[in-house]
Amino acid sequence: MMSLLLVLDLVGTFVFAISGATAAVTRRLDLFGTLVLSFVAGNFGGITRDLLIGSVPPAAICDWRYLAVSLLAGVITFYWYSAVDRLRSPVLVFDAAGLALFAVSGTQKALVFGLNPVMAALLGMLTGVGGGMMRDVLLADIPTVLRADLYAIAALAGAAVVVIGDLLHIPATATTIVGALLCFGLRLMAIHRGWHLPVARPERSSGKKHAPNDETIE
Amino acid sequence: MMSLLLVLDLVGTFVFAISGATAAVTRRLDLFGTLVLSFVAGNFGGITRDLLIGSVPPAAICDWRYLAVSLLAGVITFYWYSAVDRLRSPVLVFDAAGLALFAVSGTQKALVFGLNPVMAALLGMLTGVGGGMMRDVLLADIPTVLRADLYAIAALAGAAVVVIGDLLHIPATATTIVGALLCFGLRLMAIHRGWHLPVARPERSSGKKHAPNDETIE
Amino acid sequence: MMSLLLVLDLVGTFVFAISGATAAVTRRLDLFGTLVLSFVAGNFGGITRDLLIGSVPPAAICDWRYLAVSLLAGVITFYWYSAVDRLRSPVLVFDAAGLALFAVSGTQKALVFGLNPVMAALLGMLTGVGGGMMRDVLLADIPTVLRADLYAIAALAGAAVVVIGDLLHIPATATTIVGALLCFGLRLMAIHRGWHLPVARPERSSGKKHAPNDETIE
Repeated sequence: MMSLLLVLDLVGTFVFAISGATAAVTRRLDLFGTLVLSFVAGNFGGITRDLLIGSVPPAAICDWRYLAVSLLAGVITFYWYSAVDRLRSPVLVFDAAGLALFAVSGTQKALVFGLNPVMAALLGMLTGVGGGMMRDVLLADIPTVLRADLYAIAALAGAAVVVIGDLLHIPATATTIVGALLCFGLRLMAIHRGWHLPVARPERSSGKKHAPNDETIE
Repeated sequence: MMSLLLVLDLVGTFVFAISGATAAVTRRLDLFGTLVLSFVAGNFGGITRDLLIGSVPPAAICDWRYLAVSLLAGVITFYWYSAVDRLRSPVLVFDAAGLALFAVSGTQKALVFGLNPVMAALLGMLTGVGGGMMRDVLLADIPTVLRADLYAIAALAGAAVVVIGDLLHIPATATTIVGALLCFGLRLMAIHRGWHLPVARPERSSGKKHAPNDETIE
Repeated sequence: MMSLLLVLDLVGTFVFAISGATAAVTRRLDLFGTLVLSFVAGNFGGITRDLLIGSVPPAAICDWRYLAVSLLAGVITFYWYSAVDRLRSPVLVFDAAGLALFAVSGTQKALVFGLNPVMAALLGMLTGVGGGMMRDVLLADIPTVLRADLYAIAALAGAAVVVIGDLLHIPATATTIVGALLCFGLRLMAIHRGWHLPVARPERSSGKKHAPNDETIE
């Protein structure tokens, strides 16, 4: 079970690292920048979770395999970008799998460290979305997850299954699998059906007065 | 006393969370993004302080009330944006109150964890301004506090009162109240009188040579 | 030896702080913003390393001298910007020295805290480049180090010397000096000869289909 989880975790890291490297290549970073983005996208969520729960040094810093997998993804993407780019749709599927794995494994780890159920689920979600957020911050973009389709909610749903199962004393193996499948399924549905969360519509009429100020701040 | 401080702390979190949610709505993030910005603006300063002083897991992660208050502020702002927007001036007053409360409570906590007085005051200031800084970083803006009116200095003044009182062995309750009032008053004065810190004026003549480069980097 | 290392560390902090303050002044931040950028550029790399290895509170928070040196650099740059600006070329040399010192001292500290050799070298590199990265993130820019000339690689080379020396049980003093000199020399060569890392060239033809999407996300 543990070694299966580790393999899945490394697969998730690999796929997220590809997303970081792809973003770096399209923004014309150099090789070093591409490898940094790979590592950040693959591991920043888990590192932040570990810092917040007090698991120091974080797993991604102690265990060389996370680094190796991230660098491998970065090098492949850097030198065979057009091949990776053609796989865009499979990559989205793998990314959904990575999100599902990170969400449930992050939640389990937070529960082990004694966090309350709600925060454990949120830290599971953070494990899943943190890497992509930091990738976008380093590229001076607003993180896609803050305004894109149903991404974080899928992670949260998977994490919630793990937490509720823990409260009901259901064996962790079962809830982990169910939670991961739920997240994975929700994410794929969101991609295929274009599900979105609502976006607030600030009223143009009353908002006009100060909108210029807000935009000149940029 | 403790429960009064907690109430004031939660009020500060609520007001800062509104500032995050308002920024998110005007930049057209979705509901999830708005809630993330609410939590970040309300709690990132305190979380960073807790990580730096070794108080792990941070209070905002352990205590569900910080989360609840942040999400409440986010939901209200998201669904009743025009009402919140009309309250802009009261929100500025509450924001000044939040800044004052965070600055003095952050300083007290850093002193309890044994930091030296100067760093305790700076961590108090960080508690007050950190949330707004991260809010702006996530929106790919330069943090307002780095170039706006007398905001951080007001927080630092309040924190300094707490630290000096601690060095002189004056009871904490008294210095906390005086420090918070000083910060609150300074901030309101800065708003009403338009007080600003000086801005350096790089010479145009000598600066022209490389200014274009600096700007194309953006 | 220890006091020599401390002096060199503070010199590195001072030079990096100047780079932060210079960036702040050219972007027209106010005095507070300039001092924040000074502190961040000079200390963020070391603070992140300390958080990751569990050395809490970080040295830059405990020891007032890091703060004093950073603020001094910030004030000098703010009030005598044109003088500092004229020193641009000497500043590059000092910056290379700061990078070298941070890389080797960061690696030594990570080894002392029991990290594995590869991660210790990477944390040494992070100590050197982290401050400049955060400086750029706060200015809403893509970090220069992610797409500039041979900067991080020079730091990594110096860190590698320290790590390899540690594995071979060579006295730390010798490897520290050799590592720092290697990093310093590589960095100066990179500046003078314009050495760059390769940049990936996403194919225009196949990339055109989705390039517009990627750019509208910005």
